Amino acid sequence: MDIAKDARFASTKLKILSADERSNALLAVRDALAANKDAILEANKLDLDAARQADLPSSLIKRLDLTSPGKYDAMLQGIADVAALDDPVGKVSLRTTLDDGLELQRVSCPIGVILVIFEARPEVIANITALALKSGNAAILKGGKESLNSFTAIADAVTSALAATKIPASAIQLVATRADVASLLDQTDYIDLVIPRGSNKLVSDIKNSTRIPVLGHADGICSAFVNADADPEMAAKIVVDAKTNYPAGCNAIEQLLVHKDAVKTVLPTIASSLADAGVVIKATPELFEALKDIVPENLLKHSEEGDFDCEFLNFTIATTTVGSVEAAIEHINAHSSKHTDVIITASESDAQRFLNGIDSASVFWNASSRFADGFRFGFGAEVGISTSKIHSRGPVGLEGLVIYQYQLKGSGQVAGSYIGAGGSKAFKHIQH
Amino acid sequence: MDIAKDARFASTKLKILSADERSNALLAVRDALAANKDAILEANKLDLDAARQADLPSSLIKRLDLTSPGKYDAMLQGIADVAALDDPVGKVSLRTTLDDGLELQRVSCPIGVILVIFEARPEVIANITALALKSGNAAILKGGKESLNSFTAIADAVTSALAATKIPASAIQLVATRADVASLLDQTDYIDLVIPRGSNKLVSDIKNSTRIPVLGHADGICSAFVNADADPEMAAKIVVDAKTNYPAGCNAIEQLLVHKDAVKTVLPTIASSLADAGVVIKATPELFEALKDIVPENLLKHSEEGDFDCEFLNFTIATTTVGSVEAAIEHINAHSSKHTDVIITASESDAQRFLNGIDSASVFWNASSRFADGFRFGFGAEVGISTSKIHSRGPVGLEGLVIYQYQLKGSGQVAGSYIGAGGSKAFKHIQH
Repeated sequence: MDIAKDARFASTKLKILSADERSNALLAVRDALAANKDAILEANKLDLDAARQADLPSSLIKRLDLTSPGKYDAMLQGIADVAALDDPVGKVSLRTTLDDGLELQRVSCPIGVILVIFEARPEVIANITALALKSGNAAILKGGKESLNSFTAIADAVTSALAATKIPASAIQLVATRADVASLLDQTDYIDLVIPRGSNKLVSDIKNSTRIPVLGHADGICSAFVNADADPEMAAKIVVDAKTNYPAGCNAIEQLLVHKDAVKTVLPTIASSLADAGVVIKATPELFEALKDIVPENLLKHSEEGDFDCEFLNFTIATTTVGSVEAAIEHINAHSSKHTDVIITASESDAQRFLNGIDSASVFWNASSRFADGFRFGFGAEVGISTSKIHSRGPVGLEGLVIYQYQLKGSGQVAGSYIGAGGSKAFKHIQH
Repeated sequence: MDIAKDARFASTKLKILSADERSNALLAVRDALAANKDAILEANKLDLDAARQADLPSSLIKRLDLTSPGKYDAMLQGIADVAALDDPVGKVSLRTTLDDGLELQRVSCPIGVILVIFEARPEVIANITALALKSGNAAILKGGKESLNSFTAIADAVTSALAATKIPASAIQLVATRADVASLLDQTDYIDLVIPRGSNKLVSDIKNSTRIPVLGHADGICSAFVNADADPEMAAKIVVDAKTNYPAGCNAIEQLLVHKDAVKTVLPTIASSLADAGVVIKATPELFEALKDIVPENLLKHSEEGDFDCEFLNFTIATTTVGSVEAAIEHINAHSSKHTDVIITASESDAQRFLNGIDSASVFWNASSRFADGFRFGFGAEVGISTSKIHSRGPVGLEGLVIYQYQLKGSGQVAGSYIGAGGSKAFKHIQH
């Protein structure tokens, strides 16, 4: 199987195409998907029929369905939007004159080959093709088996559109089986980055089965800390939004930490609002006592072991008290998945201490954790959300698909002429 | 063993120290190493005696030896130099107003916990302590067993110096055994980055035994490509420096690619210069023919299988012809270790095509590969050289030890008010 090797070879060709050549290829893909809409939706219908016959969950069928109003056009518009973004390649981030006629530049460039593994959503193929080509990367795509017909029809349109452009044929390749993926995950020499898009299980399984760097997040264990001086109404509004706006989202909160001095003053308002929204509160013994006259019996439970390391993904929240901002930082750094954590406080200095002390990709003051999202951050395109500690964190835009290289332009200089390598010349090191 | 967990805890504390607090701790370490010089050099003598008795290679003994003129003072000066660098933490790289009173910033911050594994050089402990604390990271250090006495003496001085500062005690920890390292390499929850500093074997072994990201390079298979229009004198000077200035260096070249039209015009000058420098040329059959009247018999050999994937690390170079710049790019991208590659040409357009097409961390035009080095690039401090494709590439300065987090400051905003999450407000997304 030469898929990965072919992708690596294509990435070499992609690296020297111009921004226009890459962006025009995106528009060709968009046009081909528009022209083949009927065939693609027919293929999609086969997948939908099979999914309904197999009684797959309605949430999965919804993700599969390309026929819902506006979805197909949004997919096409998404490609055009990516084509219109600034070129992420060729940006100079450092320029130093090492010596006369010896100029160093750090220039952004594609990473190389990315492997993207996703589940039901067939439109991801269009989205990833756009992001990969825009950033000059070759991509290998593996979709879920439920969307195989849709996926194949879209892939055929993409492949034939690219054949008429300067993009090499193996720049976008599709693989269908799990065995293919297992083999690809071993090819550290040819694949530079793996991006899993799907369930926690998919992401954890992939993280545990490859030494290739993985961009993504398995868990989203996010917290809100309510300081003693928090405004009760603001705290209630933020906590309810962060918990209930989309509880299955990775940026929903799972934990509420309350300063001990806010238990009688701020927590009641928050707890009533959570109860009004139908959220089950799992409380430590002291909080259970404080809440039992405020929260209806059916919505108040005792917290259990593991609650503070759990992603509920539903209308449940675990809550406990802490004695200080520092204690909140310690609790969160020990339990969070480094995704997004929030402080609600009137104190700017407490807020800044919290923002600087929390070891997570996104740290918010007086705003809902749900803002942790590429669209809301204004990135134009989202590659995914990363809880890694290196390369790219949080919502990742096109920048996450580029790296840099050092380009040095000389006029015959050799190291041996300079101090430290046998010579006597000194470097000038003039930063521009 | 709680080493990694303790380091993680310390990193939380380090994250909120000020730049002055971190830099002052470096100066305290420098002063303690100056004050304890006699004790440390005595301990170093024990290591040196043991190494000589065990007949260890002289290169290793040289690396162990802290008593050679200027070495100890250079170590102290190195710490002061790092202390004086700009603070890498807290730099704002993106600022966007998402909406009125909802301000997003991307701010640089420490990565967290780094594990540094090194071999004989005991002064690395001072160097890494300085780099880690300057960038706000906790570090776990494992030195080679040959330097255990030196290492322990330096560590004692560092630990007692830090005890008088705001740096938490477990910010710098030392481990002595291989078993400790094996256990640490499994702790993906607590350790964010592994930096091996030593032989190719050390680096490959570590890369193959952990899922924690590794910053470093196992091989340095670098190439020079001589274009048809290259100036013979310049080409000879660069190739000889790149090969012979320090053949054991990772930035020395192992391969010489010659444009077929340069074989009769440029190669003879290069080959004579290489022969004068005592370099053995391993040539493909056609080049062997072309060179046999120029290069003395004892310095000319037939190339063997694997020569173009080999890091000779001595006075040997493999050479072959290519038909074009594109063919040179293909050959290098297939065989190089993505470290540093060089083109020698008079053509700016050929040079730019080469620089953009080569998939390596450093790409040079008319300059020796030996310039790929943190000191020569003007970085002030070098963490290491990376051949990874993500996060940090090439010579890595302090920037390689920081990442960023998104800090969002609001005034009670919730996602549910905005388009896409149930509301009707639009984002402003004003970039600053």
